[in-house]
Amino acid sequence: MVGARCVDGPAGVELVVRGRYAAELSLDLEKNAAGRAASLVLERWGLRRAVRIIIDAGIPVRKGLGASGAEAVGAVVVLSSLFGLNLSPLEVVELASSVEPGGHADNVAASTLGGICIIGRLSGRLDVLRLEPPPNLGLVVIVPSIFKPSTGAAREVIPKSIKMEDHVRGLSDVAMVTAGLLFGDLNRVFRHVSFDHIVEAARANARVYGEAYNWETLLEEKQALLDRYNVALTISGAGPSRLLWYDIEENSRKNSNRPIDEAVRLVTANLERRGYRVEDVIYTRPASRGAALITSLPGP
Amino acid sequence: MVGARCVDGPAGVELVVRGRYAAELSLDLEKNAAGRAASLVLERWGLRRAVRIIIDAGIPVRKGLGASGAEAVGAVVVLSSLFGLNLSPLEVVELASSVEPGGHADNVAASTLGGICIIGRLSGRLDVLRLEPPPNLGLVVIVPSIFKPSTGAAREVIPKSIKMEDHVRGLSDVAMVTAGLLFGDLNRVFRHVSFDHIVEAARANARVYGEAYNWETLLEEKQALLDRYNVALTISGAGPSRLLWYDIEENSRKNSNRPIDEAVRLVTANLERRGYRVEDVIYTRPASRGAALITSLPGP
Repeated sequence: MVGARCVDGPAGVELVVRGRYAAELSLDLEKNAAGRAASLVLERWGLRRAVRIIIDAGIPVRKGLGASGAEAVGAVVVLSSLFGLNLSPLEVVELASSVEPGGHADNVAASTLGGICIIGRLSGRLDVLRLEPPPNLGLVVIVPSIFKPSTGAAREVIPKSIKMEDHVRGLSDVAMVTAGLLFGDLNRVFRHVSFDHIVEAARANARVYGEAYNWETLLEEKQALLDRYNVALTISGAGPSRLLWYDIEENSRKNSNRPIDEAVRLVTANLERRGYRVEDVIYTRPASRGAALITSLPGP
Repeated sequence: MVGARCVDGPAGVELVVRGRYAAELSLDLEKNAAGRAASLVLERWGLRRAVRIIIDAGIPVRKGLGASGAEAVGAVVVLSSLFGLNLSPLEVVELASSVEPGGHADNVAASTLGGICIIGRLSGRLDVLRLEPPPNLGLVVIVPSIFKPSTGAAREVIPKSIKMEDHVRGLSDVAMVTAGLLFGDLNRVFRHVSFDHIVEAARANARVYGEAYNWETLLEEKQALLDRYNVALTISGAGPSRLLWYDIEENSRKNSNRPIDEAVRLVTANLERRGYRVEDVIYTRPASRGAALITSLPGP
């Protein structure tokens, strides 16, 4: 959650952080996504005002969960409202992504629009297509105590060139996942979303997801979850969080061992056996709604 | 169209070709897709029978239009019926693709199932997803007098490794095209299907689509068709045929210059200006129906 108000003082952005993960956010404007986004908005619209940006940090930081993207979007949306800029969702995505590392729009698009977003370019301009998430799609985020130096570092291990056969497999998987999401065919989604032989493989082998995990280890775990529980395991963003995809209906039986719970136990047990702690287990769903304005935010 | 009947004589396949493109088909069992497919079926099911396969060659040969795949599928389907093998569509695709160069299933899947097919693999097994074509999607096939040595040669110029940024763009385009087809959003499909910076670019620069065409030439033509006529230009299969994608509704106005006709004229004029002849212009649509049995086929 991000708030903004005009305050007395010299023109510019002042940051206030609070909430569960406040201690992990930098107060340095340049190292804080909401700070960078807010500065950019003031500069772009020539607003010589003193603005306080209040970040209620509810998303684990540096865990591959898109916290910085969400905060950048929050800052842009709240400033658009405060100064009556009337930004379109696509303008919000463009502004917020320009302060993301690598300028990538995937996290900020989903934070802005909700749903599941496909990012593209058309004649050099950003193009975003939002898909409504299948109503049965459930997600569990498992946040391990694995330290990821930075998203930038995780980015560096991505290969510059890839094998044609991996490319073709990737194209096929993406087409299958897209169609599966639109048909609501979760079994298809799970089977084609599980295996990213390019980026996840490279990062796993560079030990970005934990010293004790390589691609082989991860692959084995993915296959076990799929075969035993019909659950897809992917790494969230640049990691280290694990994302488990499951069918809510299939797991609705009360008073019995739900496959998704067994899957969470397996991933957790593997992490703990390898010396990691599980910091958070979050049962959630893809949000239908994106960034929304709440008119008043109590606080400083 | 492919027919089959049992005849007197030694066990094995005998080929008869007729129809417009008969002269271009080989009667050598190993060089004929229907011949290879028929031999494989007889062998796989231990059928020691003399079978005559009749190919009514209605698809231009070596023009990137999937003629060999269609003939292989025809042979498998008709033999399945003749000998009561009761093959499932997926079994037909598997058998017919195993005799295609490179074993690729894209042409045979569409020939078997109709519609627009996504090919994938699941735990090492073939996986095919058929999409219903958008009702408004029209196609024009322009067949130029460009000689393509062989699909195998066109295959060899495909790079073994590709740049990550081209891979990412490809993934994005495929997701956008898949979603566009399912939403019936043809404008989106046209814009994201037009530019294949990997395979088409490599083949264009290897002059597979004509000595007078490189990727830059082709790119220019693609952009012009999109900008002026809302028509997407792609190369069909390994080429050299040009495939123009258009919106039927947008082009339904009678007695006026239809954009698609202008687009066909532009592509044709460019070919002729560069010394090629246009052998066929086929106005068509993606078929909803795949391989179908016609119980009797007159002839030898």
